Amino acid sequence: MQIIPINELKELHGLLPLLPMLYVGWTNGILSPTEILRLQEYVNSQTWLTTQEQGYLKSWLNPQNPPAEAQRHDWLSVIRDYSDGTSVVGLADFGRYIARRVDARLDEEVNRALEFVEGTLGARGREAIRQLIPQTYDLPVLVESQSPSFNVAQLTQTLDGQHAAFKQRLRQLLTTPQFAYHQSHDSEAYRADVLRWLEQLADQGLGSAAYPAAFGGRDDIAQYLVTMEMLGHHDLSLLVKFGVQFGLFGSSILALGTRHHHERYLAAVGNLQLLGGFGMTESGHGSNVRGLETTATFDAATDEFIIHTPTESARKAYIGNAARDGEMLVVFARLITQGEDYGISPFLVPIRDGQGKLMDGVRIVDHGDKVGLNGVDNGRVSFEYVRIPRENLLNRFADVAADGTYSSPIDKESRRFFTMLGTLVGGRIGIGLTSLSVAKNALTIAIRYANRRRQFGRNDQPETLLIDYKTHQRRLLPPLAQTIALDFALHGLLDQYAASVKQPMQADTRTIETLAAGLKARSSWNATHIVQAAREATGAQGYLAENQLGRLRQDCDIFTTFEGDNTVLMQLVAKERLVALGKEMRGGKIVGVLLRQLWRGIRPKKSHKITSSHLRDSRFHKRLFAAREQTRVLALAKRLQQLVKQGADPTDAQIAAQNDFIRLADALIDRELLAHFLRGVAGTKDPAVRAVLDKLASLFALWQIEQDAAWFMENGYLSRRKSRAIRAEVESLCEELRYQALHVVNGFAIPDALLAAPIGTR
Amino acid sequence: MQIIPINELKELHGLLPLLPMLYVGWTNGILSPTEILRLQEYVNSQTWLTTQEQGYLKSWLNPQNPPAEAQRHDWLSVIRDYSDGTSVVGLADFGRYIARRVDARLDEEVNRALEFVEGTLGARGREAIRQLIPQTYDLPVLVESQSPSFNVAQLTQTLDGQHAAFKQRLRQLLTTPQFAYHQSHDSEAYRADVLRWLEQLADQGLGSAAYPAAFGGRDDIAQYLVTMEMLGHHDLSLLVKFGVQFGLFGSSILALGTRHHHERYLAAVGNLQLLGGFGMTESGHGSNVRGLETTATFDAATDEFIIHTPTESARKAYIGNAARDGEMLVVFARLITQGEDYGISPFLVPIRDGQGKLMDGVRIVDHGDKVGLNGVDNGRVSFEYVRIPRENLLNRFADVAADGTYSSPIDKESRRFFTMLGTLVGGRIGIGLTSLSVAKNALTIAIRYANRRRQFGRNDQPETLLIDYKTHQRRLLPPLAQTIALDFALHGLLDQYAASVKQPMQADTRTIETLAAGLKARSSWNATHIVQAAREATGAQGYLAENQLGRLRQDCDIFTTFEGDNTVLMQLVAKERLVALGKEMRGGKIVGVLLRQLWRGIRPKKSHKITSSHLRDSRFHKRLFAAREQTRVLALAKRLQQLVKQGADPTDAQIAAQNDFIRLADALIDRELLAHFLRGVAGTKDPAVRAVLDKLASLFALWQIEQDAAWFMENGYLSRRKSRAIRAEVESLCEELRYQALHVVNGFAIPDALLAAPIGTR
Repeated sequence: MQIIPINELKELHGLLPLLPMLYVGWTNGILSPTEILRLQEYVNSQTWLTTQEQGYLKSWLNPQNPPAEAQRHDWLSVIRDYSDGTSVVGLADFGRYIARRVDARLDEEVNRALEFVEGTLGARGREAIRQLIPQTYDLPVLVESQSPSFNVAQLTQTLDGQHAAFKQRLRQLLTTPQFAYHQSHDSEAYRADVLRWLEQLADQGLGSAAYPAAFGGRDDIAQYLVTMEMLGHHDLSLLVKFGVQFGLFGSSILALGTRHHHERYLAAVGNLQLLGGFGMTESGHGSNVRGLETTATFDAATDEFIIHTPTESARKAYIGNAARDGEMLVVFARLITQGEDYGISPFLVPIRDGQGKLMDGVRIVDHGDKVGLNGVDNGRVSFEYVRIPRENLLNRFADVAADGTYSSPIDKESRRFFTMLGTLVGGRIGIGLTSLSVAKNALTIAIRYANRRRQFGRNDQPETLLIDYKTHQRRLLPPLAQTIALDFALHGLLDQYAASVKQPMQADTRTIETLAAGLKARSSWNATHIVQAAREATGAQGYLAENQLGRLRQDCDIFTTFEGDNTVLMQLVAKERLVALGKEMRGGKIVGVLLRQLWRGIRPKKSHKITSSHLRDSRFHKRLFAAREQTRVLALAKRLQQLVKQGADPTDAQIAAQNDFIRLADALIDRELLAHFLRGVAGTKDPAVRAVLDKLASLFALWQIEQDAAWFMENGYLSRRKSRAIRAEVESLCEELRYQALHVVNGFAIPDALLAAPIGTR
Repeated sequence: MQIIPINELKELHGLLPLLPMLYVGWTNGILSPTEILRLQEYVNSQTWLTTQEQGYLKSWLNPQNPPAEAQRHDWLSVIRDYSDGTSVVGLADFGRYIARRVDARLDEEVNRALEFVEGTLGARGREAIRQLIPQTYDLPVLVESQSPSFNVAQLTQTLDGQHAAFKQRLRQLLTTPQFAYHQSHDSEAYRADVLRWLEQLADQGLGSAAYPAAFGGRDDIAQYLVTMEMLGHHDLSLLVKFGVQFGLFGSSILALGTRHHHERYLAAVGNLQLLGGFGMTESGHGSNVRGLETTATFDAATDEFIIHTPTESARKAYIGNAARDGEMLVVFARLITQGEDYGISPFLVPIRDGQGKLMDGVRIVDHGDKVGLNGVDNGRVSFEYVRIPRENLLNRFADVAADGTYSSPIDKESRRFFTMLGTLVGGRIGIGLTSLSVAKNALTIAIRYANRRRQFGRNDQPETLLIDYKTHQRRLLPPLAQTIALDFALHGLLDQYAASVKQPMQADTRTIETLAAGLKARSSWNATHIVQAAREATGAQGYLAENQLGRLRQDCDIFTTFEGDNTVLMQLVAKERLVALGKEMRGGKIVGVLLRQLWRGIRPKKSHKITSSHLRDSRFHKRLFAAREQTRVLALAKRLQQLVKQGADPTDAQIAAQNDFIRLADALIDRELLAHFLRGVAGTKDPAVRAVLDKLASLFALWQIEQDAAWFMENGYLSRRKSRAIRAEVESLCEELRYQALHVVNGFAIPDALLAAPIGTR
């Protein structure tokens, strides 16, 4: 077959953009005869090629008579003329670059053609480019720049958002010498340090920020929660003590008490004159707090409640601030009056007098050493007929008159109970935000180390940076992307929650509660996984205590359990989604026919596109995430319906389908995270910052899709080929982001004094 | 349509076994018209049905005219006649049970038919059965027994194997009061305790077990490694100190030294007269030990080597036994003589005199607090022109004459180096075994707790056991199955290794080294994941220090890094597999044509079967595992070949394909684990023990397939439907095994005193 001379080849402007793909396709032998025929047909319809160009192209697409070695060699020479160090991300992109260089036609149609050919080829990304320009292995022709592609301070501003000034103030406060980390192994000394720190925070008015101005506060729940977020960069024992004192204890008085409680206690809680704790959990009743057994029996004769621990399993357990410092607890106990049990209500119960002596009938056992958080004095508390005045009932949702008559504005016991639990929502957002900070600390340490430490490599060159290893990128970069997704989502939720506190009547409380539960779970798991990944990624260095990863792991680990066990919270998310489905169907009842209709409605438009631009398109991600959630909620509804129809008790049905509950919740949280991330990207003004965030959003979405690829394939949402392409695209994104990741973590702006890890300093 | 009276129905013996499936199929509406037509066709070919039965059956398989409600009701009545409390695992199984009850024909053909129908239906497992017999939600008709289905002591015997008596001896030794766990936070006191324990072990002759009898040992490497395994149940600081002293230090003298070293030192190492350490790792050179910088320059004038640390990155780092107790190190340094650098060699370097004073020129910095293992005295050691006599060169593989002439039986420096590293193999097996014990401790604690702790449930019943929750089962049971796979595999490897030590000429050293690397990595990751899962699964209880999970996590975590970073080891496994592929192809060179042929050879026979018996069939698992490994090694070979052809440096090519290396290694290790597991099952004489192990083997295999389902689908080894069925089968197996799991961990026979966790006692 005829070989076209190089000079003539260079004039075929319409063909030049296709040469990279032709070369890779033939050289790798990745074109099957069928694919070649498909390309041949396609060529006929391309009006942007001259007849001569079409002719040549067809002659090059003959499986019986492939282009000669010499011809391919000439293609390569021409291609290399255009490899001048510009960074291109794939074959179609390279084609576009060549088209621009030779002023060839480059409109929608040509672009579509390039993407079609790239898609048919299936050879994608940088690696294909490297095949064309092998010296890129030696020279940094297409290697990403190690200097930042964006202004790091701008990223910090984007992430800090409206809280920028306040966060900056806290970064400064927490790096002052009085907040230097505690060093000894002596728990008592550590507890004393934590209490001292807590006093500093109270002095700054940070603890009472959420309380009404009338009681020493600033009516600013957002500031209170952002303080929790910032404490996540520092010491988690302090964070927990802070949350117990001002959040669980103080907010309970605010939310469950009435004016006389507020007047008497709130200011003292805010300025630490009164230290307290939150007595909900019992030894036998952790997640299932409706099973609490402690009793509060009203004695009309003395106008008192008698608080009592009737069994071993009723002992209040893991109560923060109880073992050493607390003087009062909000105790949740079954309110019994006139012989009737009215369910669980909150009571203020003094546990120590002003001199630190235990009150009569109160017994407290120090829980002693814990896995972490040993700066917090957790204790197990039991009561032996402890008498408190009637007014110590926090009586916003239920009251008892002097004669023992019970009254409540909320009829149903279960609704009363869940209204009471609503006070936990703020705490869950706080734990989500704190976990976010833990993840950022660990990522900063590990990613900085990976950009310094070298190990192995070619003999003729410096050893390879850890971050250049693909396994290292996979370990750290997708979790980095998820962390930023969580950052946007938690701050979005925080705004919504703060607004709801100001205007409760207009708030969508259920959505906020659901999201708070789901994001708390995801964020605490994210932190746990990242700390572990960071420890492994920093090798023996990461195992030295001085590099903090051990401390972070031991301290943050319990976040997956407390303020609601993650698995229980995820079930709650799924349940709420089912309720919403019921409402969508109006009757509140899920009817088979309707189900089937909805089902058909969500069948995916199948797209086999595997070009980079399609795979990175957020519309593609959103469509998949929405379809997954919808499919799962409908499938779960149907399954539950069947189980119940066949006689299963609803509780048993839920246990039988429990894994499906979790899978539905995962899908919902992913969808929310992506939506918040994309909103955050869209709201970013600085184009360079937006560009890097945009890539991270794609990485987050594709990584999640990759992890669930089996399900997407099973349900017909992904072809086998596309699933493979997604895996490769995740790797490409990791590679593109590997140096920028360093600047992204720098954008978290965590002061070195807070990281306190020699391998993680700036 | 005609409804057949119940009496007549009961006489249709051929049809009765099909009724459960017919009922479930029609009731759930899961039969599509196409599937019904498929069943219709099938019916025609079934000679075991009478003509009358065929007629009825066809009339019930008409999508235009489905069986009437009343007809289905009658089916159900008949079906329930046979639900007498016997446990059946699925619809086909139920069919077989009915066939036996009515003495219907039940041969190969009928059985195939039942499985075909079950497969077509896709409604599988216990849940389908429950639809038929709803009262199983209330009554334990089909609920698994909570008492053991096997003799627990028999399981212990199976797992302990030939080491049963020795293991029992160690269990007793380690539960004597002198081995009671250290309680304080004082590292110095802890280190003293560990040294005291070490002395006890030495007194029992356990440290020198692997040394030749001539030097105080027993020539028994297996006993030495089983001691490491048993120490994994106790304190990991002791384990590490034991491994450093007797393994790294002593075995180096044995393996790298010659007779005069053995005579002079071995007995003293074994009885702790001489404490030592292993000076390989340097600050700048962790995984890449070929980059070590420490020098050992020969001075012929004094007949001495001068050991020197030329740079900061050359400091020997994390050296166990160095900060407090060690008197001598095996130091790996570049041997320089007559102006020539001959590469890395081992030297015996005294670091302290008999009084514990540092030798001249030796500087040691205590690494201080670590994340865990604080009973081990790790130090950073540097040398300033420290002189040692020439005879302190461990000269088995290289020697220097008095005049400075270098000689070695091994020509190539790199081969010399890797021969030297071979001494690490035993240690890797030891760490794999130790990690196994850690996993068993954590599983025992979490699974016992899950069989005690109750939370939530129906109002009319006791709360639900944690182990009854599906998420809980998923968290704990597949990892339990993998742990037993590791048990069999590590002990298989141990036997091979022990034999190779006895008869080195007949040993397949490469296979042993590869497997040691891969199993060390998998076992340490398994332990890390399980400890984390156990912590989360035991809630706040698991966060109390007294329940040991925090200690286990902090201590075992570094196992993923030391004795070879897991990621580096996995790459080594994959590399060896590539080398083996090259050998298979004889020429040692991978040729495209051959590749393509091999490729075709492994294309899977597609099987769409989704019956339980097929999915649990080990032949199915083995086929999939083998095909995956073969596909991956060929794909990787092809990819590397292409990269190199296009000009990539081999090191760069390996970095580009790094994730594929890891995926190949994973496939290889899975295949090995399954093979060892099945061999273990086959070798188990007790049928009840074999039955539970067989189920665990299926769970292990299906769980691994499920985790990699996307890849299997992408490559055409699994259909979408089958992938779904596998997920459901994993859940069924978890449910079936949930109570037996308690007895399985009891079979690990870990004494309560070693678990030392109040929530995990027997």
